[in-house]
Amino acid sequence: MKLYETKTAPNPRRVRMFLAEKGLLDQVECVEIDLQKGENLTPEFAAKNPMKKVPVLELDDGTCIAETMAICRYFESAYPATPKLLGDNAVEEAVIEQWSRWLDYYFFVPCGMGFQHTSGFFKDRMTPVKEWGELCVADTQKFMRFLDQHLADKQFICCDKLTAADLTAFAVAAFARVIKLRVDDSLPNLHAWYQRMQARESAQV
Amino acid sequence: MKLYETKTAPNPRRVRMFLAEKGLLDQVECVEIDLQKGENLTPEFAAKNPMKKVPVLELDDGTCIAETMAICRYFESAYPATPKLLGDNAVEEAVIEQWSRWLDYYFFVPCGMGFQHTSGFFKDRMTPVKEWGELCVADTQKFMRFLDQHLADKQFICCDKLTAADLTAFAVAAFARVIKLRVDDSLPNLHAWYQRMQARESAQV
Ligand SMILES: N[C@@H](CCC(=O)N[C@@H](CS)C(=O)NCC(=O)O)C(=O)O
Ligand SMILES: N[C@@H](CCC(=O)N[C@@H](CS)C(=O)NCC(=O)O)C(=O)O
Repeated sequence: MKLYETKTAPNPRRVRMFLAEKGLLDQVECVEIDLQKGENLTPEFAAKNPMKKVPVLELDDGTCIAETMAICRYFESAYPATPKLLGDNAVEEAVIEQWSRWLDYYFFVPCGMGFQHTSGFFKDRMTPVKEWGELCVADTQKFMRFLDQHLADKQFICCDKLTAADLTAFAVAAFARVIKLRVDDSLPNLHAWYQRMQARESAQV
Repeated sequence: MKLYETKTAPNPRRVRMFLAEKGLLDQVECVEIDLQKGENLTPEFAAKNPMKKVPVLELDDGTCIAETMAICRYFESAYPATPKLLGDNAVEEAVIEQWSRWLDYYFFVPCGMGFQHTSGFFKDRMTPVKEWGELCVADTQKFMRFLDQHLADKQFICCDKLTAADLTAFAVAAFARVIKLRVDDSLPNLHAWYQRMQARESAQV
């Protein structure tokens, strides 16, 4: 299997961490895509993912699966003997999906848009709207405060164990430095959780 | 179980259609929340969903599950004898999740933001940015053309059968009228698919 990805980008990082936590990193051959050079915008890449984003997983039969959580779900289902990161019963699965989506919609999307619309990093392929970018940065910061409160009495985001939600939250919290938001002791619970996550082997891959 | 929802809103509609296709509508008691009056902004509602959005499912033990796809996943897992709408094996599950996310990120989000930012419908609770809203409307239209091409040789969005992806695509395509985008015969494949979906019993609930 091939994993088309970008070492410095937060979505591929979620997939690598997910695989590392499951002990499955050696199942994939990583292919680096240079986003700033637009290697994801070629017709060859668009044939793998018409949305022209990384990560993309290519199975040995040529089937391509785009979208971070779709790739994670593939591995969760195809390797049932590995640690479950998407839940073990109906309520857990639903709670983890709830958190994954809160984190995607109300943390990752504002963070990513905040970055793209204030920096113009991808202005060759989208129109930055500064006012919108600034509102997104403010929303990201607000969500970090919400997470900090949420983590006051918890070791993990949900289900009292490591789940995919922690991996998403960690990848976004680390990425937020691009909009000058840093997890420090002004948010003590988030900071302590962040340091625990940072100490995991999967955070190094 | 209680389902907090809003009859006219597209996310709750996805849940109702999902339940109808599984024959599970009678398992939930629907509680109508008036979004324009701000009934979702009260402390009581925020205790059920801190993101203050519908739909929310409340289980009999008081556990609350927010987020459309998390609620759908709960029913898929808790009622394994009902028709599977999220896939039957690892590849199907991944492909359906990929499509669900493409539809959420590149169709539903632009459509919803296009509406909110051009109309000011929720200006009591967010700051509309007209320029951003207009870019979102254009993205929504572009995605509709992509869907039309994709459906040229298909009865369903993916997996050659009805899945949750069709329900999302249908709910958004119907909702797009609020930004003056209508599915008509200028997009013939999307239009034919839309009419097939419209004819299902689940489209009436
Ligand atoms: N919804 C997608 C988002 C993927 C995404 O936005 N990837 C970024 C890198 S983190 C990308 O490829 N950006 C390149 C571009 O927008 O041109 C997922 O969850 O995988
Ligand atoms: N990501 C959420 C989105 C929920 C959502 O945005 N719901 C809308 C209605 S379709 C809402 O509650 N809007 C009220 C508001 O924003 O105040 C999901 O998938 O359920």
